[in-house]
Amino acid sequence: MDTRTPYVPEPAIRRLPWYLACVQQLKCQGVEHVSSTAISKQLNVDASQIAKDLSYLNIKGKTRIGYEVAELEKGLNDFLGFHLSHKAVMMGVGSLGRALVTDSGLSRYGLNIVAGFDVSPRMIGTSIAGVPVYDISELSWRREELGAEIAVIAVPVESAAKVTEMCIDAGIKALWNFTPFHIKSRPGIIIENTSIYAHLAVMYNRMGNQEK
Amino acid sequence: MDTRTPYVPEPAIRRLPWYLACVQQLKCQGVEHVSSTAISKQLNVDASQIAKDLSYLNIKGKTRIGYEVAELEKGLNDFLGFHLSHKAVMMGVGSLGRALVTDSGLSRYGLNIVAGFDVSPRMIGTSIAGVPVYDISELSWRREELGAEIAVIAVPVESAAKVTEMCIDAGIKALWNFTPFHIKSRPGIIIENTSIYAHLAVMYNRMGNQEK
Repeated sequence: MDTRTPYVPEPAIRRLPWYLACVQQLKCQGVEHVSSTAISKQLNVDASQIAKDLSYLNIKGKTRIGYEVAELEKGLNDFLGFHLSHKAVMMGVGSLGRALVTDSGLSRYGLNIVAGFDVSPRMIGTSIAGVPVYDISELSWRREELGAEIAVIAVPVESAAKVTEMCIDAGIKALWNFTPFHIKSRPGIIIENTSIYAHLAVMYNRMGNQEK
Repeated sequence: MDTRTPYVPEPAIRRLPWYLACVQQLKCQGVEHVSSTAISKQLNVDASQIAKDLSYLNIKGKTRIGYEVAELEKGLNDFLGFHLSHKAVMMGVGSLGRALVTDSGLSRYGLNIVAGFDVSPRMIGTSIAGVPVYDISELSWRREELGAEIAVIAVPVESAAKVTEMCIDAGIKALWNFTPFHIKSRPGIIIENTSIYAHLAVMYNRMGNQEK
């Protein structure tokens, strides 16, 4: 059994980066031990929830002492895979795609964008922050050569369905979708829909309701 | 009563941009009417769920004819507020902040970034895609003068807590947080946490589990 990736419910996984950020801050401040209660106060998550989430990773605190900060950081980092290099291709290097390629935060969190693909003759053959941009028709053999298994989808919404099929045909295993197009789930393919614009919709709506 | 912003549950709001993207595509293709079943097939969302979500917006289809595409697009656009201009400030113009300022997608979805704020003397006084960057110490009076009510938080995680307090003290009403720091909810302030890196964590984990 591979213990590197135990099954953890998605809501718990989403909270783990908060704990990591919190623990990294504590480490910078020279703190050596931390209780779930102390993390709880900082993040506004129930202490019992934190303890439960961390127990999935086999990280357990000690009575009265709490968690060892260095160990907790390592455990979270190992589990989250942020220290590994996951090769990815960027589908579409328009405004958002280009922005994501230039965001060094992604590589800090383990996403290694090795190539961009586009249809625009103006973009093909150029490079963005050192990442080469290829013709989308070359996706299949380029992907295999590069060994990338993740595709970030940042094409215009009307091309999203077609580009998704192209990626899957080319052997992509995980799709990180930034378009408002909802990609249907299918066996063997991981899909993460991150429609940042949907968050805007929620925010506007809540602001409108509050103004009443 | 202001009927512009009826209360709609958050999961429903998050699905509305999918419907809008789908409907815009149909409109481009010259389609005039669409049933919830047809939208359902394209998005893999239950037809009954779609009908329910749209009923919150007082949009109702007709038996055998379905929804009128133009009306549906207008209803979704009006509700989502993507056609309005919501003034916002960008807190932190490092890698991600700069990327978000240059993403024209945000303005297409109604977010009008009118200023950036940073602590770096190298950045202060410059402008990014026409957006001026000011010293973060000027936030309070600049915000008031600009009339911005939204702050996008893209500072390093260790500064997120402090910058959040500065924004709220300066009169910001809604925080769109891109850092892995979890901002506590508080009365009167809208908080949208969009930790894109948390999505990476989920994706890596699911990929690891599948390789077993």
